[in-house]
Amino acid sequence: MSLLTIGTVAFDDIETPYGKAEKAIGGACTYASYAASYFTDNIRLCSIVGADFPTEEIKALENRGVDMEGLQIKQDGLTFFWAGKYHQNMNQRDTLATDLNVLDDFDPVLPASFKDSKYVMLGNLTPEVQMQVIKQLDGSQKLVVLDTMNFWMDIAMDSLLEVIAKVDVITINDEEARQLSGEYSLVTAAEKIHKMGPKYVIIKKGEHGALLFSEGKIFAAPALPLAQVFDPTGAGDTFAGGFIGYLTHTDDISFENMKKAIMYGSCLASFCVEEFSIEKLRNLTNDDITERMNLFKEMTHFDL
Amino acid sequence: MSLLTIGTVAFDDIETPYGKAEKAIGGACTYASYAASYFTDNIRLCSIVGADFPTEEIKALENRGVDMEGLQIKQDGLTFFWAGKYHQNMNQRDTLATDLNVLDDFDPVLPASFKDSKYVMLGNLTPEVQMQVIKQLDGSQKLVVLDTMNFWMDIAMDSLLEVIAKVDVITINDEEARQLSGEYSLVTAAEKIHKMGPKYVIIKKGEHGALLFSEGKIFAAPALPLAQVFDPTGAGDTFAGGFIGYLTHTDDISFENMKKAIMYGSCLASFCVEEFSIEKLRNLTNDDITERMNLFKEMTHFDL
Repeated sequence: MSLLTIGTVAFDDIETPYGKAEKAIGGACTYASYAASYFTDNIRLCSIVGADFPTEEIKALENRGVDMEGLQIKQDGLTFFWAGKYHQNMNQRDTLATDLNVLDDFDPVLPASFKDSKYVMLGNLTPEVQMQVIKQLDGSQKLVVLDTMNFWMDIAMDSLLEVIAKVDVITINDEEARQLSGEYSLVTAAEKIHKMGPKYVIIKKGEHGALLFSEGKIFAAPALPLAQVFDPTGAGDTFAGGFIGYLTHTDDISFENMKKAIMYGSCLASFCVEEFSIEKLRNLTNDDITERMNLFKEMTHFDL
Repeated sequence: MSLLTIGTVAFDDIETPYGKAEKAIGGACTYASYAASYFTDNIRLCSIVGADFPTEEIKALENRGVDMEGLQIKQDGLTFFWAGKYHQNMNQRDTLATDLNVLDDFDPVLPASFKDSKYVMLGNLTPEVQMQVIKQLDGSQKLVVLDTMNFWMDIAMDSLLEVIAKVDVITINDEEARQLSGEYSLVTAAEKIHKMGPKYVIIKKGEHGALLFSEGKIFAAPALPLAQVFDPTGAGDTFAGGFIGYLTHTDDISFENMKKAIMYGSCLASFCVEEFSIEKLRNLTNDDITERMNLFKEMTHFDL
């Protein structure tokens, strides 16, 4: 099957208690595409960068099976830039800079060959841009996944709700689920969000893992407890990319298979945080992934 | 096998967003004993109450297989009393009153027939009282579990460390694990705590479940996501009681069996919070427990 990923491709300045990285490759779409590339080589990327974005990074994505025809390269613009500094506990960070640059007037244009993508990952962007992408799809999609954040709930709730009504899966964190639904209990929050449109609600809880809700069923995936989280940037996007990449590969959206997809997402995210930027995601092997999935299984399975 | 539970038996005034209970039956030892009673009827309780504690509540515990010979009833004293009010989110609470009463000079005396208990649950009490209990045991114990809290780390760390050195399992929450070890990562925290004595470290994370660490292995148990948490009081003690009750019944302290024990603990805790005080723990059926354990299995298991 084919997977379309939409979102940011960026430069990040990152400071953690363990070091610094400047102009590191980042962006939701980059992380998601790398993660998905471990399951499928039929990925189509739609994003925008400036002339400053390295050609070898575009080639690197192509080498992982990502069709870059949908990447707009704006010759007179600069790539989206984000700078952040993580606190000692790694769960909190301060945003030091957000330069939208070319993202400011991003008008996503899907190449004709992208419109029939069966799986779609709508990375975190303005709801208006996400809707523009949805409108260009040919309607043959099997699963559309939406990622969003509290910022859009604060300033563009109406447009966001229109997008939410059109997707099959939403991924948000626990605080965002509470904000979106007005409910404290995540069970009740998920029920309310189902009624807004998405049949599947995935609530990300960072170091506490993720919850999948659908039709009264719940799956609880832990995150891997790690001795050292080196850089949490992109972990949520990597999780989403691993999740939809596995679904694209298996083309099975049953609840049972979604469980596995969530675990593959957690697995890829656990690698992501072990190094700065996308470094760890460049060269994983199938053995690395299999070994870690076995670890997740040992860590969660019990006999009755 | 035999199980000894030591800890408080108390009256609680509880206020939650869903209602109020006055002079409700509480105390760590009460919750743990009720939870354990679903797995074994060979439970020995050691605690202290005043003459105001209802005889029918003592009988109710006896009817669940709890030997009450170790319960001191101080005729001229009042039972330990705690009052607390939960915030809307149920994760935070204010303590409104703590009247130690008879607990103030509790001198635990184990009946001769209790000293050979193979499993021991040392509920949260001053480290000095916990040590007095350990010294009375005959040395034939198979597993001693310690519960403690940040309060003792603040005011009695040296005595607490002496107790920790003598137990096999410690149960604490994530913030307490960080305080005790001085490490933020729970993996590193558990490694440091192992070196203090306990072979098994159980880190309780409330609504996020619990982690078991032993010899480099990790098990992650989720809590059951609930639409409504009615009263969280005693959930941690119920978890510990279900855990050690199941181990007492099976007499198998392998890591694999501990996983199951942790899940039974989570299962009992999920019932505990559904009603005020110990009400829900009075009359569960085996079918209730089996049904909920199947739910936990569905919620955590995936195929590879």
